[in-house]
Amino acid sequence: MRVALVGVGLIGGSVGMAARRRLGAHVVGWNRSPAPLEVALQRGAIDEAVTDIDEIGSADIAIAGVAVDALPAAVRSLCAALPDAVVTDVGSTKGALVEAIEHPNFIGGHPLAGAESTGVAHAREDLFQNATWYLTPRDATAGVLYERLARFVAGLGAVPTAIAPHDHDRLMAAVSHLPHVVANLLVAQATDALGGETLPATGPSFRDATRVAGTNPPLWAQIYSANRAALGAQIDDLVRRLGEVRGLLDADADGAALAAWQGAAGTQRRALLEAGLAGGGGAAREIRAEVPNRPGVVAQIALALGRAGINISDMSLAPEADNRTGVVALWLSPDDAERAIGLVAALGYPAARA
Amino acid sequence: MRVALVGVGLIGGSVGMAARRRLGAHVVGWNRSPAPLEVALQRGAIDEAVTDIDEIGSADIAIAGVAVDALPAAVRSLCAALPDAVVTDVGSTKGALVEAIEHPNFIGGHPLAGAESTGVAHAREDLFQNATWYLTPRDATAGVLYERLARFVAGLGAVPTAIAPHDHDRLMAAVSHLPHVVANLLVAQATDALGGETLPATGPSFRDATRVAGTNPPLWAQIYSANRAALGAQIDDLVRRLGEVRGLLDADADGAALAAWQGAAGTQRRALLEAGLAGGGGAAREIRAEVPNRPGVVAQIALALGRAGINISDMSLAPEADNRTGVVALWLSPDDAERAIGLVAALGYPAARA
Repeated sequence: MRVALVGVGLIGGSVGMAARRRLGAHVVGWNRSPAPLEVALQRGAIDEAVTDIDEIGSADIAIAGVAVDALPAAVRSLCAALPDAVVTDVGSTKGALVEAIEHPNFIGGHPLAGAESTGVAHAREDLFQNATWYLTPRDATAGVLYERLARFVAGLGAVPTAIAPHDHDRLMAAVSHLPHVVANLLVAQATDALGGETLPATGPSFRDATRVAGTNPPLWAQIYSANRAALGAQIDDLVRRLGEVRGLLDADADGAALAAWQGAAGTQRRALLEAGLAGGGGAAREIRAEVPNRPGVVAQIALALGRAGINISDMSLAPEADNRTGVVALWLSPDDAERAIGLVAALGYPAARA
Repeated sequence: MRVALVGVGLIGGSVGMAARRRLGAHVVGWNRSPAPLEVALQRGAIDEAVTDIDEIGSADIAIAGVAVDALPAAVRSLCAALPDAVVTDVGSTKGALVEAIEHPNFIGGHPLAGAESTGVAHAREDLFQNATWYLTPRDATAGVLYERLARFVAGLGAVPTAIAPHDHDRLMAAVSHLPHVVANLLVAQATDALGGETLPATGPSFRDATRVAGTNPPLWAQIYSANRAALGAQIDDLVRRLGEVRGLLDADADGAALAAWQGAAGTQRRALLEAGLAGGGGAAREIRAEVPNRPGVVAQIALALGRAGINISDMSLAPEADNRTGVVALWLSPDDAERAIGLVAALGYPAARA
């Protein structure tokens, strides 16, 4: 199998490594400038580097891993130069690109992996293990091409998942892009409300809610722009929902409707997240423990749980207002929760289900 | 010094413990039913239990630690029964209560402590150590009463901070209540966008942004209600800001303005949070490391840093999409950041400044 890669960053580089090592593919990297390809060769992400697209020859699979705004041109070049290849991309939005590219050999793609770091230096063969990899076939897509691409993606370790381009974009807007927008706005609003005063220590809610505020500005500006239609619709939806809360606040004298609304959000969050976090052992359970805020405590807890074979699938440590104590929240398999509470309590830290 | 307490839960109980042990005060607990007072006596939170307010006799300080909707009546009773006392409360909003109580001996209060657990069972003497304790004196407040209350609060270990009632409520709405509202809405919106599909693993942003969704419905319904005016204004402000982002999305063809906006949010977040987290050692630095998602890894990292005397002031562990690897974010003193990166890297986990 021959694989052509344009753009050998974190995602492209990891595709190359996995394709070479897991599928025995011959991977050709194409870039107008040779420097990035040298690094990719050294990292074992490609077998061969070419600076002229015609040197690729032929390919079964061609993947564009370049920045969102360079994608249409890269995809068109690959479709034109490699008529036998199924051509795909790894961009974070799909609607606009799929509409812009009419070539029947193109199937949009988006692996959900690798958001935290960038560059081929962080590329690794197992980046896509068990990751959802969205693919956007069209009515006109040849079955043989979709099958080839889905098998390739599965061969890299991912779970190929077909989705309509606009459903994909709406989903990403709701679970990723809108939370980033809101984090930015909460930070701006708190800055104004404080008017130069110091933020008081208010527990972990503000820190958690704004953790992604301001992440990687050039990348996120591209992501917001590329998904502007779906993100705009989600923003409008949030405005509508904020209006409903405003109505509840004004009308709900005894707080019963607010309490019901708050309760429903908790139920929805558990339904959304616990399944995703558990990794096979059923829904994850959250336990919380009060601990002194000093070196060694987190280690002590994590060690005690590790020794008992209990995996921590998610963790949050937040100082209390006094900055001398804190609360550790741990997400665990429900089978482990009671045992974990006992182990943490035995270390002298009061623990309970959240 | 004689202290009267009505409501001996987490906050009231901790006030009693700290007043008795740190200030040598005689603490009288008042409640219509004797059962909660028995527990408070056992826990050492009060010296004496009375079920009739007239049995209190006299007090220097009287504190209402009851639920928000029971506060006006409790404060009025204390003001009437204890004419020599400075009367305060520990409720989470101040504007409505301060307007409702005209008695000159009342000064509103709000310690920022103890949001994570409730009940006298979790009460402890050091709950308020270094915590901000907002006080809302009025123009008519006698200086001697404010001084007595501020000294008392400082004697419990807290930092008394005078603030106008409506400034307090606006600030709490922006940094705490609005983030809770938004978390609920993001969860509802994602649920609708998914339409029954499984939430894909999208990195930590959605989980962090919605961590507080649905927390303690009866308590939060009361908090939202009690702060409805300030929270409503913050909601309106968020709607306005969402409109601005909508405009940026539509107008910003090359993404420069979006990138600038994203960058500004990052700068603001650092300014807001790093000072608050550092606890004396300058602004906190965030470092991130990629780790395998298995028992023992967090312990190994925390131990290595603890052994080197490095304190972790905040931590977040999030699984990657593959659920086999994860990213650990650590907040540390900037003096420790480089050393921590080296120690974590020496364990075999690539680490870098975030």
